[in-house]
Amino acid sequence: MPERDLQYLAELAAQLRVDSVRAAAEAGSGHPTSSMSAADLMAVLFACHLRYDFDDPANPANDHLIFSKGHASPLLYSLYKAAGVIDDEELLTFRRRGSRLEGHPTPRLPWVDVATGSLGQGLPVGVGVAMAGRLERVPYRVWVLCGDSELAEGSIWEAAEHAGAEGLANLIAIVDVNRLGQRGPTRHGWDTGAYARRFGAFGWHTIEIDGHDPGQIDYALNDACNTRRRPTAILAKTRKGEGVLEVENREGAHGKALKDPDKAVTELGGSRNVRVEVHRPESDATPYRFATSGMQVPAWPVGDQVSTRAAYGEALKALGAARGDVVALDGEVADSTKTQVFAEEFPERFFEMYIAEQQLVAAAVGMQVRGWKPYAATFAAFLTRAHDFIRMAGVSGASIRLVGSHAGVAIGEDGPSQMGLEDLAMLRTTYGSTVLYPCDANQTAALLSEMADLEGVSYLRTTRGDTPVIYEPGERFPVGGSRVLRQNPGDRATIVAAGVTVHEALAAADELRAGDIPVGVIDLYSIKPVDAAALIEAATTTGTLITVEDHRAEGGLGDAVSDAVSELGPRVVKLAVTDLPGSATPREQLADAGIDRAAIVAAVKRLL
Amino acid sequence: MPERDLQYLAELAAQLRVDSVRAAAEAGSGHPTSSMSAADLMAVLFACHLRYDFDDPANPANDHLIFSKGHASPLLYSLYKAAGVIDDEELLTFRRRGSRLEGHPTPRLPWVDVATGSLGQGLPVGVGVAMAGRLERVPYRVWVLCGDSELAEGSIWEAAEHAGAEGLANLIAIVDVNRLGQRGPTRHGWDTGAYARRFGAFGWHTIEIDGHDPGQIDYALNDACNTRRRPTAILAKTRKGEGVLEVENREGAHGKALKDPDKAVTELGGSRNVRVEVHRPESDATPYRFATSGMQVPAWPVGDQVSTRAAYGEALKALGAARGDVVALDGEVADSTKTQVFAEEFPERFFEMYIAEQQLVAAAVGMQVRGWKPYAATFAAFLTRAHDFIRMAGVSGASIRLVGSHAGVAIGEDGPSQMGLEDLAMLRTTYGSTVLYPCDANQTAALLSEMADLEGVSYLRTTRGDTPVIYEPGERFPVGGSRVLRQNPGDRATIVAAGVTVHEALAAADELRAGDIPVGVIDLYSIKPVDAAALIEAATTTGTLITVEDHRAEGGLGDAVSDAVSELGPRVVKLAVTDLPGSATPREQLADAGIDRAAIVAAVKRLL
Repeated sequence: MPERDLQYLAELAAQLRVDSVRAAAEAGSGHPTSSMSAADLMAVLFACHLRYDFDDPANPANDHLIFSKGHASPLLYSLYKAAGVIDDEELLTFRRRGSRLEGHPTPRLPWVDVATGSLGQGLPVGVGVAMAGRLERVPYRVWVLCGDSELAEGSIWEAAEHAGAEGLANLIAIVDVNRLGQRGPTRHGWDTGAYARRFGAFGWHTIEIDGHDPGQIDYALNDACNTRRRPTAILAKTRKGEGVLEVENREGAHGKALKDPDKAVTELGGSRNVRVEVHRPESDATPYRFATSGMQVPAWPVGDQVSTRAAYGEALKALGAARGDVVALDGEVADSTKTQVFAEEFPERFFEMYIAEQQLVAAAVGMQVRGWKPYAATFAAFLTRAHDFIRMAGVSGASIRLVGSHAGVAIGEDGPSQMGLEDLAMLRTTYGSTVLYPCDANQTAALLSEMADLEGVSYLRTTRGDTPVIYEPGERFPVGGSRVLRQNPGDRATIVAAGVTVHEALAAADELRAGDIPVGVIDLYSIKPVDAAALIEAATTTGTLITVEDHRAEGGLGDAVSDAVSELGPRVVKLAVTDLPGSATPREQLADAGIDRAAIVAAVKRLL
Repeated sequence: MPERDLQYLAELAAQLRVDSVRAAAEAGSGHPTSSMSAADLMAVLFACHLRYDFDDPANPANDHLIFSKGHASPLLYSLYKAAGVIDDEELLTFRRRGSRLEGHPTPRLPWVDVATGSLGQGLPVGVGVAMAGRLERVPYRVWVLCGDSELAEGSIWEAAEHAGAEGLANLIAIVDVNRLGQRGPTRHGWDTGAYARRFGAFGWHTIEIDGHDPGQIDYALNDACNTRRRPTAILAKTRKGEGVLEVENREGAHGKALKDPDKAVTELGGSRNVRVEVHRPESDATPYRFATSGMQVPAWPVGDQVSTRAAYGEALKALGAARGDVVALDGEVADSTKTQVFAEEFPERFFEMYIAEQQLVAAAVGMQVRGWKPYAATFAAFLTRAHDFIRMAGVSGASIRLVGSHAGVAIGEDGPSQMGLEDLAMLRTTYGSTVLYPCDANQTAALLSEMADLEGVSYLRTTRGDTPVIYEPGERFPVGGSRVLRQNPGDRATIVAAGVTVHEALAAADELRAGDIPVGVIDLYSIKPVDAAALIEAATTTGTLITVEDHRAEGGLGDAVSDAVSELGPRVVKLAVTDLPGSATPREQLADAGIDRAAIVAAVKRLL
């Protein structure tokens, strides 16, 4: 096979190094040395093993390639140039304003599945893509280029555990063991055995090679392709900056353009115009799709006592019946979040991710790469564990649906470690996100369905305890909307609540009305986007908004309301959790936090 | 030795089970079965191996015991009762409002170092406590009781890597392999070998035992104590709910009181009154303390161009010279954060945590348990990786200092994956936190010193690029304060900025003043607590506040300002990052995000 011609592979790799040096030199920054160490690995992958139709990035039979070491972007872009999908002119726009060739890869490029650059994320996302392959019964492979430094991230070992235990043989990690991190030597240097022992202990097939020897690389990639029932980790010993003496295997040469790029290019044998013909996938794959039946939205009679987490479970089951593309993941708490209801009905589309929230979210990101509609659930508090993955999902424009149960002090006796009190703030700050917080079962079911077609990261916050059903089945709750639940001509203030505090607000409003102090109540179930029009109208009418939330005072519902009306300047009074709760009953917790009906009544009376 | 009497140990363990069942029964909730599986392990530890003076919890020679599986709190409290430090009456206050015996342990109890309950955190924190032991040259041991389910958390493997590589022989993990998680069986069931292989690969000494056999337990604990140069993991096969047929080794019995507690107590042989005499530490240890010299606060002349990250490095070095209790940790980016400056001066007090941000923060939490003043730094963006650890540090009341560099779009070409745009929101929502954001080098040095004596989680946000020095050396910047930088009688609005946007605000104010539109400028370097008085005064005077921040629009400086003045109701206009940035120069980024001087000028003109 000509592509296995060693001279050709060496020329291709040299060109990748040259172009990496040139791109970084033109930009005046970037990571050429981290690109140069992996050039041989990627040259052999592209020339001999990758199956990818660059003319049709959406071909479902295409392999997936994820640069978990996203800072090696010059290498990735040099590969695209060698594959003929970008030209040299575009290569040299690297890191410039408006260029698709950003400092770290993002899906602005049609061949990039997810944004990387926060280390330790590419492999867990690759696990999700590999999981989808098994679900779809399509034999694509998922190649992940990892750095050695990022193997210190715990998320890598969550991925190793999941992939190893599930036997994801379609997942191949290529680790560029170049010995040098950003600041200095890595912990294990060139001891590829240290990494091999770790991956091996987690159930992976491992191969240790010289990462600059095309023959060994080819052997390893081939071996990985032929390995059954286990993912493969290729531990490739390489030299950072390979090929240029100024930087080769030297400390202090991370993340900067070379001092003398022209000399480096000469040292590498000069510019070339080598093309690589990447193999197209052999067959047109048709991904398996699950059969569907009609949508039967669950319905609860007004007045029933039902927790919104229970409604989520039932509604997800109904959605799963109607849509074959819905999958559910959970962090070993499905009996609490109630994902269990879906899991029992659709075991093939349920994924137990165990107590590994980073991998939970990463798997969802990986599965949506393949067009699935993932819902990933755990306690709202524990979603903070995956904050960086959620942040990067926003950067990727990934459409994932997160569900956080056991929100707020209302969980009661379990205490502060289990209370989601920061989740609204975390999800509100996420780029392109949607944040929903229902107060009753029928609203939960309606919002869960709305989420299915949302783009970006969306979030549903659910409550542990039962709350009364206040909305009729079948009512619509558009994202970005709100519901005015109490409104009288003489309202002295408007209470804005969501979730569990809606019921406290209604009780408070009734008590105040009995005392001749009419107040309005708005159910702000859509925290982001927020219904600014309704809030501005209320602010204009009553002049005072009282926000009540089972969440910390920073970054949640109160801030969303203040923000919506801030140019208008009404009085906004915020009731939220400010102290550190301990154990107590749910009702005691709401009272202690000053967010129950009595606290609302007191706040209104204080203000008027 | 009488305490090694098997009959006694069995009686003690039975009492721990009985009391766990009783406490949960009285509470009507809790995790008795997760307590029962580990009762023998803890009985032998308390009776034979723990060295702890319950009369003097502050004795520096005391061992440390961390329940990483915090839900086994009934067992911990039953141990305290057996040790005689709480009585039976208090035991039965478990999970009640006002009780110290919360659903999950917190440092409200003097013998609890840190709050647990978010799984996978106790072991990484234990690593920090063990690191402190080496620094102090005190031979205490750190015992961590882990569950098997929580070994799926990546943070456990960050801890395994750090402890294994550093050879922390004073750290002993006792893993209660009871086979059952919350929802059902764990991934590896009773395959203790699966865990032993993993820990072994990370360099740990491992022992697999029957966790209900006091002889085997005693042997293993003894072996762990005698193991040099390696931490030890004891993988103990146990049965969840051991001793009570209703729940023993059964699914569906997690996290709830037993149905028939009286029958269970009878089955366990009835209530007992066994006491355990925990050995006191053999010697009075005097922790090693580092010598200090005088404080030489670094000073920069007004007008110099210096990055606040560089100032942080210099200031930390100066603080380290003056205070021997200051230690620094970094996530393999010390050359970027500039922790490097401290590391070179005080190598013994610098800890390279590699790219493992959860362990980075957990190590800081662990070291402050022993009275150290840790400063932990990485890119602001990557602190999101440790969000759950930061959240729990807040619950623990841990005094740690976090430093996030490379804040905002102002980093330039590296792109969104590297930009800290959510950090202010994350740190503001943390319970008991302080959030500081300096705009020049002298202010950075002043705030860094202020942080040393702050309680709780404090955060310093630094900027990558150079900014002009605007404050004289030696000026004071109290936490909770602000600086009025421009103020004129006829101000039409007040611009509120911090960090990099202070300089944009000053430039905008000068331009506007030249156009006869005077505006005020406030440097809001303390984002939490915020200087409400100054903001209210400005709002009262000018009626319009324009906030400008290099951060997302949600949860940051703008929300802090809105919140401070919300009851007053001025107009607040927020300039913040709302789109997804790409690569561009720092100046282009500020312009594209609409937070540069031109954007501020335009906003003022639009409003007036």
